[in-house]
Amino acid sequence: MELNYKAVIEYDGTDFFGFQSQPGGLRTVHGELLNVLCRVFSNEKISISYSGRTDAGVHATGQVINFKSNKSFELSRLKWSLNSLLPDDISVRSLDFAEQDFDARRSARWREYNYYIINDYYQSVFLKKYSILLCRELDIDVMQEACRCFLGSHDFRAFCSLNDANKSKIREILEIEIIKTDDFHQKNMIIFRIRANAFLYNMARIMVGIITEIGSRSRKISDIELGFLDKDVNYSGSMVDAKGLFLSNVGYKVF
Amino acid sequence: MELNYKAVIEYDGTDFFGFQSQPGGLRTVHGELLNVLCRVFSNEKISISYSGRTDAGVHATGQVINFKSNKSFELSRLKWSLNSLLPDDISVRSLDFAEQDFDARRSARWREYNYYIINDYYQSVFLKKYSILLCRELDIDVMQEACRCFLGSHDFRAFCSLNDANKSKIREILEIEIIKTDDFHQKNMIIFRIRANAFLYNMARIMVGIITEIGSRSRKISDIELGFLDKDVNYSGSMVDAKGLFLSNVGYKVF
Repeated sequence: MELNYKAVIEYDGTDFFGFQSQPGGLRTVHGELLNVLCRVFSNEKISISYSGRTDAGVHATGQVINFKSNKSFELSRLKWSLNSLLPDDISVRSLDFAEQDFDARRSARWREYNYYIINDYYQSVFLKKYSILLCRELDIDVMQEACRCFLGSHDFRAFCSLNDANKSKIREILEIEIIKTDDFHQKNMIIFRIRANAFLYNMARIMVGIITEIGSRSRKISDIELGFLDKDVNYSGSMVDAKGLFLSNVGYKVF
Repeated sequence: MELNYKAVIEYDGTDFFGFQSQPGGLRTVHGELLNVLCRVFSNEKISISYSGRTDAGVHATGQVINFKSNKSFELSRLKWSLNSLLPDDISVRSLDFAEQDFDARRSARWREYNYYIINDYYQSVFLKKYSILLCRELDIDVMQEACRCFLGSHDFRAFCSLNDANKSKIREILEIEIIKTDDFHQKNMIIFRIRANAFLYNMARIMVGIITEIGSRSRKISDIELGFLDKDVNYSGSMVDAKGLFLSNVGYKVF
């Protein structure tokens, strides 16, 4: 019987051309995973399904993948082997056997992304690859209000890349919040946590873009409503840099 | 009148051959700082004093430096300029004017280092450059007890590098503690926090080495006492890797 392996994957997106395999041999997370799985599973043809296609430069702490094989391995030994063979910027956080019909993409009920902004004049050396620095003043209350406009089901045609290939642009935002944190190493960190049933191409970064522009008063909250109505990308702000974005969590139905 | 500039510096030590300038043009934190200061201060001869000479691969969140110049700059603008010119792996956290007789090295009352160990089978991608992975079981209670043996003034001849050039090997450990933490991204993190009036060459890493060997029962607590008595390096454990070590804080007398 085929076994269905499910893994939670973590990666530093800095040196990858995104998750999905690319023509021309560009380095991708999918490519590196496939290389290692083919070695461990002795060149068996492995097909990887994954919860979210992250762009070049986007990081993950909770990307979920699954793949099937007739070969049976003890899970903790397999996890150890994979982590020994994977490059330093990818690792397997957890590994389980899933039900036969579990599919990391199709079974996912929601995806959650976190976006990190340092709203200060100083960005810690240790956060430069994982956050963006915004020096201009941001009105958090207005941004919270803007977040609430995104909640629920909407047509996100105005808030995704023109290159998005999905037929339906309707997506449901289940949760969206802004968390302000301060610690010894970094003051004035703002985290956007966005949970949706699914995301269109560049949707999370475009949402964070318009919300921060609303926070610095260069756009109005009404632009969100107008974007939903007119479906015109002119209502969206500038997209924020990939390096601040993390695919943090994926939710599944309980089998 | 000469102004005495005092700065707190942060750096990711991964790509540096330590703090101190080296012959042969190796990349050092001191070298990069000096380059940028000479540019900003128009090739004035700048001499940098610093609180602690960190080894190749050691990081800092709280290295303190000072330098003198007749040129007067507005501090927030100077900090911004320096951070714009410095490479991504060094930055100036804070900048102040200090009293004339303040010297980052001579005026320091204590230095504090943190060492990060992941005591698990899994090390987060985002911590690989900033911690070491130790899979073997560690007895935290025994390690806490070993820590207490180091408290106070001792001759650290057995617990420093043979290359240490200091005449007196007597140093005073003011505080030493082990903190166990757990978070979503990384379970079973152990932080060693060691505060001493000053450290000998490799002393912090050798101390962490013997304490972890005591924690895994490959050495005994009595080896610390014997090391102090016999001053023989055979009583010390293996030195832990530089990448887990951070110079985190330096304390000064109040002027």
